[in-house]
Amino acid sequence: MTKSPVPIRFKDTQIELAHGSGGKASRRLVEGLIAPILGNPSLDDAALLSLGGASLALTADSFVVKPLRFPGGSIGELAVNGTVNDLAVSGARPIALLSTLILEAGLSAQVLQAELQAIGQAARRAGVQVVGGDTKVVEHGKADGLFISTSGIGLVDARVNLAASSVRPGDKVLLSGPIGDHGITILLARGELDLEASLKSDTRSVWPFVEALIETVAPGLRWMRDPTRGGVATALNELAREAQLALRLYEEHIPVRDEVRGACEILGLDPLHIANEGQFIAIVGPEYAEAALEAVRRVAGGQEARLIGEVVETPAGVVYTVSSYGSSRVVDMLVGDPLPRIC
Amino acid sequence: MTKSPVPIRFKDTQIELAHGSGGKASRRLVEGLIAPILGNPSLDDAALLSLGGASLALTADSFVVKPLRFPGGSIGELAVNGTVNDLAVSGARPIALLSTLILEAGLSAQVLQAELQAIGQAARRAGVQVVGGDTKVVEHGKADGLFISTSGIGLVDARVNLAASSVRPGDKVLLSGPIGDHGITILLARGELDLEASLKSDTRSVWPFVEALIETVAPGLRWMRDPTRGGVATALNELAREAQLALRLYEEHIPVRDEVRGACEILGLDPLHIANEGQFIAIVGPEYAEAALEAVRRVAGGQEARLIGEVVETPAGVVYTVSSYGSSRVVDMLVGDPLPRIC
Repeated sequence: MTKSPVPIRFKDTQIELAHGSGGKASRRLVEGLIAPILGNPSLDDAALLSLGGASLALTADSFVVKPLRFPGGSIGELAVNGTVNDLAVSGARPIALLSTLILEAGLSAQVLQAELQAIGQAARRAGVQVVGGDTKVVEHGKADGLFISTSGIGLVDARVNLAASSVRPGDKVLLSGPIGDHGITILLARGELDLEASLKSDTRSVWPFVEALIETVAPGLRWMRDPTRGGVATALNELAREAQLALRLYEEHIPVRDEVRGACEILGLDPLHIANEGQFIAIVGPEYAEAALEAVRRVAGGQEARLIGEVVETPAGVVYTVSSYGSSRVVDMLVGDPLPRIC
Repeated sequence: MTKSPVPIRFKDTQIELAHGSGGKASRRLVEGLIAPILGNPSLDDAALLSLGGASLALTADSFVVKPLRFPGGSIGELAVNGTVNDLAVSGARPIALLSTLILEAGLSAQVLQAELQAIGQAARRAGVQVVGGDTKVVEHGKADGLFISTSGIGLVDARVNLAASSVRPGDKVLLSGPIGDHGITILLARGELDLEASLKSDTRSVWPFVEALIETVAPGLRWMRDPTRGGVATALNELAREAQLALRLYEEHIPVRDEVRGACEILGLDPLHIANEGQFIAIVGPEYAEAALEAVRRVAGGQEARLIGEVVETPAGVVYTVSSYGSSRVVDMLVGDPLPRIC
């Protein structure tokens, strides 16, 4: 999470679900309370550390998704891919993970076993090792089945130099695939809505795509992010504010499945605010944009990647979409939390 | 946690509090279920990783202590010192921490602020930086106020080579100070017992002591451990099993405060099973033992360190105490969990 030009104060008297949304309330909590006390821990970015000649990326996430299993994945798989992806979009090859479990007494051993297997399989697929961890148990009723925290360490590729400050007007916005699948899948899996769709979570490691980009267009890579909580809109708003530039998105170029669009229309949600767990955004220099798109599309699962917009000068700090009919709308960060416990 | 010579199978159908105790049930869960699926994640040890010419130690812990604040410390302080100490007893200088928070909706912002300040202060005292983290919020009733997971990275000192396999008969057991303060403090702080004592948690970073040992007796350092959950008895039983040697402890040499001894007598507990959060055990070659003791005692807070026993050949895998009266008793690992949620 990038720093606001104006200092933010946290005045809320108690914690609400929205503080975990990844949107505006999360930003207030992190920038107004956590960062001033702890120094400058980032919410979304991996921290970079030079040690013994190597440039390391470090990141940590907690996972509290509900339900534990859903079409396309489970908490164990998210707990690997979420952390791997934070490393990947920092330009770091994921190396090792640590996984801590908080278990609720009474949790079925089968459920735990299934999630351990999901962690193991996802780690093997992502090419990382789970090198350690810890297990705590709390009384029945004091947790919700199973929470996982994962931290990861990666080796930053020396060819990339990613920063919001490197972004320039004219740069292109590359999106790796359709948005909103994860968030809407979780929403439907809760069964609270009278909706059905043959949708599944997009949870996957994005490292193969990032690796392909590094191999082909490293000098053109400016900035990357995996748009999880708060969605593409929140990630790009953070970039726009930090770079003090604007992002113009072409409405019709943004890939959204019919099922996601339909559910969002019924629920009054914007697909740009919905969480993804297997997509990433890359800002790429204009002369590298087509090669970048080709590189991502050549990797299995990357066929739906699109160039969805470009960086422009004004209005600074704003993300907006334009349609082929000429209409335009401003896309703000997520406010509140319409979909709590999405990851 | 070291590997048992006989494979352990996990046959329990559901998770119980004892699986988080650090004792026998934890061992069964880790060795019987987690390690076979994930590879070989250790419960207590930091994982070692060679990266870019540096030898790194990585460790992660979750903290679910109840109550959040207690005499001598709080969950935020534990979340720093617990992770720092895992690195220290691996012979690694703690460098950086990542901290993830799971918050229960409704948590007072003041309580959160106090714990963030505790994290910040403990990190400064321990000489580490909190470089990143993550925050999730779950609904009221789905967590117990605040859980913290911390992971840490340290730089292994090239002068030390710690392993159970380096331990030899004749080696001495050094203990850094009185045992059981933390566990009994938590128990009393819950107010469920009609006991009072002017006791406080021993939570602190043990790195200054470890650093002094490395500076003075590095070639004589064989093995170290911070005896948290499961206490000194569990840590030494794990060593005895892995090294296939015995540990003879001199009952009267083990420092235990009167308040801890008294509470343990009333409750039928053994101080050797009670958790510590600011102590460590070092196994030291006999020719280095006195110098090691002096080195620890010279550091502020190390005046109560003692040599409490020695490594002997038989009975292999057993920890036992002897008293000056000639009596002897076997000290097993912790069984069950008389004190859940101690850290």
